[in-house]
Amino acid sequence: MTTKLYDLELSGNCYKVRLLASLLGVPLQIVPVDFLGGEHKKPPLLSLNPFGEIPIFQDGDVVLRDSQAILVYIARKWGGESWLPIEPAGLARVFEWLMTAGNEIARGPNDARLHDKFGYDLDVGLARKKAHRVYALLEAHLSNEQWLALGRPTIADIACMPYVALGHEGGLSLGDFPAIRAWVDRIKALPGFIGMPAI
Amino acid sequence: MTTKLYDLELSGNCYKVRLLASLLGVPLQIVPVDFLGGEHKKPPLLSLNPFGEIPIFQDGDVVLRDSQAILVYIARKWGGESWLPIEPAGLARVFEWLMTAGNEIARGPNDARLHDKFGYDLDVGLARKKAHRVYALLEAHLSNEQWLALGRPTIADIACMPYVALGHEGGLSLGDFPAIRAWVDRIKALPGFIGMPAI
Repeated sequence: MTTKLYDLELSGNCYKVRLLASLLGVPLQIVPVDFLGGEHKKPPLLSLNPFGEIPIFQDGDVVLRDSQAILVYIARKWGGESWLPIEPAGLARVFEWLMTAGNEIARGPNDARLHDKFGYDLDVGLARKKAHRVYALLEAHLSNEQWLALGRPTIADIACMPYVALGHEGGLSLGDFPAIRAWVDRIKALPGFIGMPAI
Repeated sequence: MTTKLYDLELSGNCYKVRLLASLLGVPLQIVPVDFLGGEHKKPPLLSLNPFGEIPIFQDGDVVLRDSQAILVYIARKWGGESWLPIEPAGLARVFEWLMTAGNEIARGPNDARLHDKFGYDLDVGLARKKAHRVYALLEAHLSNEQWLALGRPTIADIACMPYVALGHEGGLSLGDFPAIRAWVDRIKALPGFIGMPAI
């Protein structure tokens, strides 16, 4: 059974899927998508994901959209309970940060980068303001903790790190956030870590 | 052990927690928060949730932020696998929609309501445009499905319904979306359903 990722190399959301797969030793068939040509907005990709976005993940009959949901699948199928536990408090604690990845980080550093690097028409001042707010929250949390949740690496870290570490491509700096920088370095030191352009 | 919800009656995010607890028969101690007075932005609530938001959920030693993460906890602790399965594909499928609740629905109908009903300074035109887009996606999906995920009620439905059903408080209409209206009605018919003002 082939496991496919419809992918864009420069997408932090696609990268998080490649990163977790690499950390867990899951082989992925990478299918590059012509993002600038809008291939994800047209059939056949649009029938795989009606939301018209990438990444899209396909494992046999299972087709998934949303990078965080894909991390959940990979962690549950190939990661045991280490990267995503199933007991109520642990699962919910990791989910708090998956929601942060899809909300505060997406609308903060990710939006700032979309504006600066890809020319998206959005309020970059608001995006940078949101980025600073979430950076401050992460810095405070990571000043007392090595990892975002449960005292160990989980998919919370994999979901949140990419767009934080790519913030410099959106005019942001981690200069005032040493605990965040140390956390990014801890993730980079994990066995099986892979980077992406600018990380 | 007391299970507490720091709550605002008019918040759709707080309501989804009250709704799932009611459907599962979990007794909650409701702690009303002085939202207009900013009680959630100050200690002691700010130390329970550094993000400065409600709902906040407390079950013994477990304190959780983010309404979707709270739904995950309640479903896993008291809901068996019906409302949130733990096998990889089912969990990821439900989680796709939890992310939609925290992203497209939050930035669409929720933002439109925050502007119209609570006077938030945000781009309401953009919020309504995003709302129409997610309504169209939901309508297409629900034209073929009774429930958002897995062919049965899950926390995907509980997470997504409130701000869709509250859209009229943000200048939106479900008039052109009969499949969404039928889905809301199916949720309203679930044993143990409770409403909130305007639902």
